[in-house]
Amino acid sequence: MRVLILGGGGMVGQKLAHRLAQTPELSGQPISELFLHDIVPPKDVDGSFATTCLTGDLSKSGEAERLAGLKADVIFHLAAIVSGEAEKDLEKGWQTNGRGTWQLLEALTGIGDGYKPRMVFSSSIAVFGAPFPEVIPDDFFSTPMTSYGAQKAISELLITDYSRKGLIDGISIRLPTICVRPGKPNLAASSFFSGIIREPLNGQEAILPVPDTVRHWFASPRSAAGFLVHAASMDLSLLEERRALSMPGVSCTVAEQTEVLREFAGEDAVRLIRREPNEDIMAIVKNWPRNFDTKRATSLGFKAESDFREIVKIYIDEELNK
Amino acid sequence: MRVLILGGGGMVGQKLAHRLAQTPELSGQPISELFLHDIVPPKDVDGSFATTCLTGDLSKSGEAERLAGLKADVIFHLAAIVSGEAEKDLEKGWQTNGRGTWQLLEALTGIGDGYKPRMVFSSSIAVFGAPFPEVIPDDFFSTPMTSYGAQKAISELLITDYSRKGLIDGISIRLPTICVRPGKPNLAASSFFSGIIREPLNGQEAILPVPDTVRHWFASPRSAAGFLVHAASMDLSLLEERRALSMPGVSCTVAEQTEVLREFAGEDAVRLIRREPNEDIMAIVKNWPRNFDTKRATSLGFKAESDFREIVKIYIDEELNK
Repeated sequence: MRVLILGGGGMVGQKLAHRLAQTPELSGQPISELFLHDIVPPKDVDGSFATTCLTGDLSKSGEAERLAGLKADVIFHLAAIVSGEAEKDLEKGWQTNGRGTWQLLEALTGIGDGYKPRMVFSSSIAVFGAPFPEVIPDDFFSTPMTSYGAQKAISELLITDYSRKGLIDGISIRLPTICVRPGKPNLAASSFFSGIIREPLNGQEAILPVPDTVRHWFASPRSAAGFLVHAASMDLSLLEERRALSMPGVSCTVAEQTEVLREFAGEDAVRLIRREPNEDIMAIVKNWPRNFDTKRATSLGFKAESDFREIVKIYIDEELNK
Repeated sequence: MRVLILGGGGMVGQKLAHRLAQTPELSGQPISELFLHDIVPPKDVDGSFATTCLTGDLSKSGEAERLAGLKADVIFHLAAIVSGEAEKDLEKGWQTNGRGTWQLLEALTGIGDGYKPRMVFSSSIAVFGAPFPEVIPDDFFSTPMTSYGAQKAISELLITDYSRKGLIDGISIRLPTICVRPGKPNLAASSFFSGIIREPLNGQEAILPVPDTVRHWFASPRSAAGFLVHAASMDLSLLEERRALSMPGVSCTVAEQTEVLREFAGEDAVRLIRREPNEDIMAIVKNWPRNFDTKRATSLGFKAESDFREIVKIYIDEELNK
């Protein structure tokens, strides 16, 4: 089985690659070859299978055809311009996040010979827009309030339609905000949710741009990799025609996040969180979902953490104690 | 005020053009010029304003730029490959109904100089897919089960995002099935809903491919033109970020339609309906919405007929007694 990860150099792509290296199979089929593709050279992983690192821009002419030509059995499509950048640069966001998916689907369909790959697309809760009910049900409508969210919603529709037509076997999974992200802050407006845990645990100051009362929806990088593997392995006919679904997660407030930090690292760590209200970030965050009822994903076997404590413990185990 | 109708040669486009000829203003501004654009030469209308008929294919290179160059103040975007054809020819449907809208938005944005037209897009209840609740609320999710529906949903997302960015002032209105359509049957799978009224009223046989119990959602061509004019005139800031909405209509069954035909034209007319069950059409129709609660559109001033009798009366008045 040949596996391709688009966005394979990113944080989630790397977590997934390592997970596949640890357990080199999908649906009981051994993985023979892994392709990691990204706009900058992705880091290789050590596995029992052959690994090829590819560099290129999905939005550029010919790149989708090159990738389709690999004839991977499973394609994880994680490639995207992040939310902050897609909002600032409309053209760039639409080219990569919108047209990129479209070109990929057309290129895959162009292969012919009955080629019909499994495609797992990492969508986002950014497909939803305020005002929300307190808990968002599985049949709540998609009204994105960012270009990034609109691009994810459009990719979902394309993947569902191409699947319905029997040209691919696709699923779109809407990831919660991934927390605690290892590494450095990025351009995503959600970056601080990881920062306020990660930086203090590493003895560094973190900036908190929103009030304590802000509630949001989280899952660990380990869960993200788990969702992707499950989505690549499960029987997608169970989804019937509704091939986009919200993943389970943990709903908690910044105050609750802070309490968990205190529990693991004490008052000194909490003091490293510097409150610096930022109107721009607050304006974005107030339109974000706070909580979901993910009955459908749960009944289909997708699993996340049960509380924020577990999320922080995973970060400590995987990143600090490794 | 300059007005452009894309799909101006179609049934709804022509109804709208005649309505504008009768009342040559939008938002209290007089219409100075009307452009009718379609893939085949549209019929001209007699109005107090100048009229220009244009022929071209929106999906072809350069056409969107030509249309944007007209710098219309109001653009009615009604151009589409119909549902049956978009389902058969995936590439053609996506090119016109999907990429066509996208190219148009990019071309409009490319004009610059602060040009920001009002765009009214005729979306469809085909953005919804079964299973449905008995009555579909305004916040029900979009899960199209046809390529046509997916293309309409994607156009809605694009128009909303470009509007949010301040590049156009757009609205997408989801039309019910328009009934009674004048003229001949077309390739839309919904064509028979008009046929079983229109043909008997004209002394001709009509084929009914589905059972009497099928329930569906209707509005007259006059209402369709009314929705479009209202959408072009209203203050769109009232929509906030949710710029796609379902239009009001009449929910009724085929049996109820038949009763209304009997009332207007007697038993002889009803006998002209020939039952000829068609599995293909039934398979499509069973996934269609049956009823909506359109609180939002109604509170914003959109109006449809109150029952199917009124819908048939409009056909008789406008098409048979004219």
